[in-house]
Amino acid sequence: MSDIVTAAMIVIGDEILSGRTKDKNIGHLASVLTAVGIDLAEVRIVADDTDAIVEAVNALRPRCDYVFTTGGIGPTHDDITADSVSKAFDLPCGYDEQAYAMLAETYAARGMEFTDARKRMARMPKGARHIANPVSIAPGFVIENVYVMAGVPAIFQAMLDNVLPTLRTGSKLLSETVHCPHGEGTIGEGLGRIQESYPETIIGSYPKFEDGKFWTEIVIRARATEPLDTAKGAVIEMLAELAESAKPS
Amino acid sequence: MSDIVTAAMIVIGDEILSGRTKDKNIGHLASVLTAVGIDLAEVRIVADDTDAIVEAVNALRPRCDYVFTTGGIGPTHDDITADSVSKAFDLPCGYDEQAYAMLAETYAARGMEFTDARKRMARMPKGARHIANPVSIAPGFVIENVYVMAGVPAIFQAMLDNVLPTLRTGSKLLSETVHCPHGEGTIGEGLGRIQESYPETIIGSYPKFEDGKFWTEIVIRARATEPLDTAKGAVIEMLAELAESAKPS
Repeated sequence: MSDIVTAAMIVIGDEILSGRTKDKNIGHLASVLTAVGIDLAEVRIVADDTDAIVEAVNALRPRCDYVFTTGGIGPTHDDITADSVSKAFDLPCGYDEQAYAMLAETYAARGMEFTDARKRMARMPKGARHIANPVSIAPGFVIENVYVMAGVPAIFQAMLDNVLPTLRTGSKLLSETVHCPHGEGTIGEGLGRIQESYPETIIGSYPKFEDGKFWTEIVIRARATEPLDTAKGAVIEMLAELAESAKPS
Repeated sequence: MSDIVTAAMIVIGDEILSGRTKDKNIGHLASVLTAVGIDLAEVRIVADDTDAIVEAVNALRPRCDYVFTTGGIGPTHDDITADSVSKAFDLPCGYDEQAYAMLAETYAARGMEFTDARKRMARMPKGARHIANPVSIAPGFVIENVYVMAGVPAIFQAMLDNVLPTLRTGSKLLSETVHCPHGEGTIGEGLGRIQESYPETIIGSYPKFEDGKFWTEIVIRARATEPLDTAKGAVIEMLAELAESAKPS
């Protein structure tokens, strides 16, 4: 039996929902998790709203091995992620002593005032562990299986790099891609039969529409190479038969 | 009292969750809805999995005026959106007579076989209305307040263009953006005080990190111009005071 590890992501931010900012973190996390052998099962984008964040955290954390959040951990009034995640866990949210000291030292060294706004970035639920932030010092945090990280892509990616080696990973979902010059309607039935014949694979077909023409990317996925290769062979054979039958006789 | 119309989006597709395909529809829908005066309240990305789709549809349709889905309405075995949405509404899913006839005619005119796979694209919950698809004919559909559309961006956008004029829209959330050369820590407290003074506005600050330096985009939003302009004036005044105090005396 394959060892499957699952994750969910919560993107927090009005700016994504308004369309003002185009999210770049979902695609990055999805690719990275797939590469290490963690299945991203669901993503939610929610507003800067305590109830919405609490609901998403509490819906997703019992059903996935890991939950990753991005956004809302900065120094301004609309950064409410630490408070909201604390509320989801019914834990007090306060200054983390170590984070506070680290930030105080950083700002002192830069000759900058350690304002109340900046102090907000040391707040986290009691008992949380830090996620190091090599870019701008203010840490993310982990509480149980929830990983709270920054929304700025450069910082999110740096935090994720620090988190990844600490995660349990499962067997990777391997994939093979076959380019298909036909639209989905031409291959749909044959592909459905191949999927039925190889239930240990997941076969997806992704229609592409370019320059007024359809083509399809066929993706075969499996957790072992043998069914993957066999199913891929069946897809290639189906396409060869289609090409053969299309030749003028 | 402002008239607020809300929406949610469900992106359906394993290919987004695996990172293979980077979603382009969320940002587009978010921007378009904001422009017409509909607030996008939540987005969920779910797998090609009946239970996941049913859960998302039934969680979101009672709490928003509109739910928009993308993906999973093509002709292949992994296109399960029509069945799943039907199940969410506890309605039978079958061939829509008009869609079936339209597709049959289209393929006949092109000299292409109307395969069982292609027939799948005529399936929808009983009682659904069509969403016209000028790109590739196979329609999307509307059932109650749920709008089921294609995942291919060109087709999604064309379907959305057809849907938009039929939607009830609310008062637009107007916005003004102020460029701030400081990081959030410098302006956090002042901005929080301005937010408190203008509760009819929503003030967001979005940290940017470029070339090793932080700057901030401050966005003021409101449903009327008067509070918007006043709050924007307060933000600009705060920034001018910061610049003044930074001058060598």
